[in-house]
Amino acid sequence: MIIAIKPGVSRDEINKLITDLENLGVKVDASQGSSQIVLGLVGDTTVINDEAVRANHLVERVIRVQEPYKRANRIFHPLDTVLEFKCGKETANAAASVKIGGPSFSVIAGPCSVESREQLVSVAEAVKKSGAAFLRGGAFKPRTSPYSFQGMGCEGIDLLVKAKKESGLPVVTELMEISQLELFEDVDMIQVGARNMQNFNLLKELGRSKKPILLKRGMASTMTELLMAAEYIMAGGNSQIVLCERGIRGFDNFTRNILDLAVVPALKKKTHLPVIVDPSHATGLAWMVPAMSKAAIAVGADGIIVEVHNDPEHALCDGEQSLTPEQFDNLMNKLRKYAEIEGKTI
Amino acid sequence: MIIAIKPGVSRDEINKLITDLENLGVKVDASQGSSQIVLGLVGDTTVINDEAVRANHLVERVIRVQEPYKRANRIFHPLDTVLEFKCGKETANAAASVKIGGPSFSVIAGPCSVESREQLVSVAEAVKKSGAAFLRGGAFKPRTSPYSFQGMGCEGIDLLVKAKKESGLPVVTELMEISQLELFEDVDMIQVGARNMQNFNLLKELGRSKKPILLKRGMASTMTELLMAAEYIMAGGNSQIVLCERGIRGFDNFTRNILDLAVVPALKKKTHLPVIVDPSHATGLAWMVPAMSKAAIAVGADGIIVEVHNDPEHALCDGEQSLTPEQFDNLMNKLRKYAEIEGKTI
Amino acid sequence: MIIAIKPGVSRDEINKLITDLENLGVKVDASQGSSQIVLGLVGDTTVINDEAVRANHLVERVIRVQEPYKRANRIFHPLDTVLEFKCGKETANAAASVKIGGPSFSVIAGPCSVESREQLVSVAEAVKKSGAAFLRGGAFKPRTSPYSFQGMGCEGIDLLVKAKKESGLPVVTELMEISQLELFEDVDMIQVGARNMQNFNLLKELGRSKKPILLKRGMASTMTELLMAAEYIMAGGNSQIVLCERGIRGFDNFTRNILDLAVVPALKKKTHLPVIVDPSHATGLAWMVPAMSKAAIAVGADGIIVEVHNDPEHALCDGEQSLTPEQFDNLMNKLRKYAEIEGKTI
Amino acid sequence: MIIAIKPGVSRDEINKLITDLENLGVKVDASQGSSQIVLGLVGDTTVINDEAVRANHLVERVIRVQEPYKRANRIFHPLDTVLEFKCGKETANAAASVKIGGPSFSVIAGPCSVESREQLVSVAEAVKKSGAAFLRGGAFKPRTSPYSFQGMGCEGIDLLVKAKKESGLPVVTELMEISQLELFEDVDMIQVGARNMQNFNLLKELGRSKKPILLKRGMASTMTELLMAAEYIMAGGNSQIVLCERGIRGFDNFTRNILDLAVVPALKKKTHLPVIVDPSHATGLAWMVPAMSKAAIAVGADGIIVEVHNDPEHALCDGEQSLTPEQFDNLMNKLRKYAEIEGKTI
Repeated sequence: MIIAIKPGVSRDEINKLITDLENLGVKVDASQGSSQIVLGLVGDTTVINDEAVRANHLVERVIRVQEPYKRANRIFHPLDTVLEFKCGKETANAAASVKIGGPSFSVIAGPCSVESREQLVSVAEAVKKSGAAFLRGGAFKPRTSPYSFQGMGCEGIDLLVKAKKESGLPVVTELMEISQLELFEDVDMIQVGARNMQNFNLLKELGRSKKPILLKRGMASTMTELLMAAEYIMAGGNSQIVLCERGIRGFDNFTRNILDLAVVPALKKKTHLPVIVDPSHATGLAWMVPAMSKAAIAVGADGIIVEVHNDPEHALCDGEQSLTPEQFDNLMNKLRKYAEIEGKTI
Repeated sequence: MIIAIKPGVSRDEINKLITDLENLGVKVDASQGSSQIVLGLVGDTTVINDEAVRANHLVERVIRVQEPYKRANRIFHPLDTVLEFKCGKETANAAASVKIGGPSFSVIAGPCSVESREQLVSVAEAVKKSGAAFLRGGAFKPRTSPYSFQGMGCEGIDLLVKAKKESGLPVVTELMEISQLELFEDVDMIQVGARNMQNFNLLKELGRSKKPILLKRGMASTMTELLMAAEYIMAGGNSQIVLCERGIRGFDNFTRNILDLAVVPALKKKTHLPVIVDPSHATGLAWMVPAMSKAAIAVGADGIIVEVHNDPEHALCDGEQSLTPEQFDNLMNKLRKYAEIEGKTI
Repeated sequence: MIIAIKPGVSRDEINKLITDLENLGVKVDASQGSSQIVLGLVGDTTVINDEAVRANHLVERVIRVQEPYKRANRIFHPLDTVLEFKCGKETANAAASVKIGGPSFSVIAGPCSVESREQLVSVAEAVKKSGAAFLRGGAFKPRTSPYSFQGMGCEGIDLLVKAKKESGLPVVTELMEISQLELFEDVDMIQVGARNMQNFNLLKELGRSKKPILLKRGMASTMTELLMAAEYIMAGGNSQIVLCERGIRGFDNFTRNILDLAVVPALKKKTHLPVIVDPSHATGLAWMVPAMSKAAIAVGADGIIVEVHNDPEHALCDGEQSLTPEQFDNLMNKLRKYAEIEGKTI
Repeated sequence: MIIAIKPGVSRDEINKLITDLENLGVKVDASQGSSQIVLGLVGDTTVINDEAVRANHLVERVIRVQEPYKRANRIFHPLDTVLEFKCGKETANAAASVKIGGPSFSVIAGPCSVESREQLVSVAEAVKKSGAAFLRGGAFKPRTSPYSFQGMGCEGIDLLVKAKKESGLPVVTELMEISQLELFEDVDMIQVGARNMQNFNLLKELGRSKKPILLKRGMASTMTELLMAAEYIMAGGNSQIVLCERGIRGFDNFTRNILDLAVVPALKKKTHLPVIVDPSHATGLAWMVPAMSKAAIAVGADGIIVEVHNDPEHALCDGEQSLTPEQFDNLMNKLRKYAEIEGKTI
């Protein structure tokens, strides 16, 4: 941690500040510059309250050199975290488990929202046949308008669990509030949506659970804030986390959000957690999903989460961004070629 | 609602779409343009699912002319909503109640977080003497890092309620999760923080409560999204809402956020709900708070919410942005002059 | 063009407005909605001054359905524009020309700034051997600080032209001001930098030239503004334009800018002009360039422009984002595999 | 300047880097932290090329403590810069000169574009009567579309100079390209538009001129970039600069841009140059101009530049954001009260 002192501060005042800081357990080096003094703090600076230092009337600027996250930091955990999920049914030709992280490129596919048993089973069978490893589907839906369809709720969860049993695909679905947690017992991975990325009470509760978490980046969250959100869950004891880039807010409107693909290699460098991409919500446009999915492999993502609907024009939600099963199948064929180049298995 | 049809679509296909739309209860006018047909929908278009229309393969673009919010819309409720709060104690020289909205300019002041009884009472007395109408203080604190001070919790609420009894000032404090609601019985106004603006389950629950709500704009939320968040609460039956601009995310870093003051007159035009400004969180810099507070009156805000701390350099949180009681008193003297010009009473 | 009239306007006033508009040569359909009247204008609405209509006191909102660009619009020119460049020397094993657009994936490589003959020739030979089709290098450099190295100027142009003769690679370099144009006679493609994208006088002048133009998207420019900048050049008679996405400004700082890869498929749909990507300036980080270059092919770009420097640590400019010739060679080997999948030739 | 070395670098390598840096004339202090070494550079660090240091393979992060601008920096020039302009005619009741900076609050008013002699003279007389100190009007107009009205050009300049002679008001108008400079001899202040803020050749040329410059902040420019643009002009010898905040690009669209009023006190702290605000272009909405103008005084601006048009509905450009002379007169009456509180004279 670096502390730049304001020009003109007396040496006595600075010495008092140094003493205060050293009493917290860090060592302080003072460098006399041409116009001001700069303090370098060494040791475990996580004990220092940045805000209090910034509020000090002697201080001009405070700069942290170390990252504020520990458990999520690749420096302290160099090896990739790999999550493993048991498949719903084990048959002769089915895999007993699927993974996210490491050499896998994992595809999560399914409808934006669960609408009926027929819909879900037909989509599940189709995406499984095309090579998806997970089934997604929303039961509780975060909608901008209180007058929009809010999801099937518990009934949607039931249908997902049934679809899992029939298809064998592990299921991923979004949890919107702590009290819903008990309904998610048979869900394989719990999604935390972009709007809840900094719902800290929810994150703490998920830290106490043993479920894998799919943590989506908030619409205006920095990379560090995303990692600090993961740190909240990890601080509670749960390290089964997959990070997801799903588009950030920008000034143009030709896509719904800006898919910030550079965050993928940046995250892979900073953290050992797997990183996937959601091209459906990022663009809001089905015709763009294949291009952005291929790009996700190119930048080193560990997977994608994609919306597939049997009848997008009659979807109760987000039809504009859903692929048909046929379009999804074409995409998977293309993705396999990309994965091969990158030494990944789908 | 306007629907632009893609060029080259056959008249038969368009007629079928028109029939489908009219079956939903709206009237459709088709205009033949030079290169494409445009449909104009009249009647109650809230029955139309925009997303389904956008997903239709004949459709190029969908444009809503009407605002998606109703209860928050000034068109349907032209008169200003005014909230009234009973003061904690009624003495000879104390007001029996204070208001937000209408001709009042209401100042909410207090520490970022409740730290002790002494701190809170001393700040409460000071800000009251200077003319604040409400006491603020955080008991549950949303912090980016799990390792930062998370607030005093229930004990903080107790201290706020005691400070209310002693000072007479109604109190405002942030609720972070539904299960905390029962602790807020004696709190006068419940704050929903920027990170929870689209925590839709929380909004629905608050819609069922009878408490006034201070709803802060999310860091990357549009004006319409803020109004839709208010609409969630109002749809549940609670219209006691104060909106708050607290800075949005931007590309520069000389302030913590960008205080978007133009949203104040824009909101006052669109909605009947009161609108206040938080210059402390927006800038993150105490020395900028007076300038931005004065600007808040200038643009027509109904009040401000300001951080005041007896000892900012030792604050457990956000000291850099807190005014001292003396600075706050100077600010209030200046604000009274501004309020006078604008015909507002502090 | 759609014009929503304010609620409560009298039919007489509306009729007068309709007459005024029809006198400009368009046909106007009026639809009576539940709360307001909406006018649909058909015909050549480019004769209408949007701003004057918006300023009209009867008007609430004006919505354009048609795109404001014509010459750049794929609707009016469905076939891809392909640019062809003569190579500097024709030898037995060298191509006589290279192309941008159509089935080619064109790689433009070279140092950020021209520093010396040795540097330029050695980089040119290296990138040519690895498969680059063009040599880039800055002679006039737009620098944030007046105290930074501003480029070698005319001498830099001379060195580029010499390097072109020796290597055979057509050269691309940035022009910063109209008066420099005469120096660019032997330059093959003139780059307009992001900061000059809306230097309209420069664009008009380039419209009168016959040189191919590499037009970079401004840091906060919308897709439509980029296309309107191209339209400025095309309106002057020059259609030899290559568009370039080079990163837009965002709220985080782990990369210099946000590479908005989704703009590539969006542009390819809207315009017939070729679109390339600049991963070096977008990220500012050499180690990220390979990932983002591969993603550029994945999303359908027609090429990339990449910084390569023989000694990045001693580069006079932007060393942090330059690849070494070895790193560039590895990247090209990878790109060829990606190009093969997409049916493109490098 | 602070340089954080990557973890694990050998002491020998670091010593070599220190020697290289000290050879450039700075002193280097090395602090051994818990996981890495941090170098503190003292002395005139402007000789160091940040980019080369960042590109060094030993370096993890480079942090500048000092601001990169000097001539614009208030540290080196503590007193406010005040610009003085001779008025066009000296009559008994007219001021001989007007100022920007110091205790003045200066109002620049006039039409977006010069359209005719009658228009300009009538607006000039009106705004003068209401208390404006300067006349503005565009002769060369930067327009997004090549098909929009581009301004009257030289003829517009002539009309401005005539209006100056008749009204006595000094005139401000925008220059778009270096070659136009000779036409601006009788113009009192040359405006550099937001799109040209980083047109470095233009800035250098203006540095050689003796004319006062009104420098508008670019739409996505940081405060530091604005000050570096001023530094370009000052480095050439011209310190007669007025900075102008005119709105930055954001994610919402209820106003054309976001008026970043906090940049005003931030700039006033960092630089001695006057700072004004353009509420017309920032919001794009005439009805919002009064609110934002008052806020400009509240935050400490030295003036505003406002569009006034005798007939906004028939303006050739930007009518939607222009005040009528009557609205402007009402605004000025309000502004005088605000100015009085702030101890400023209009």
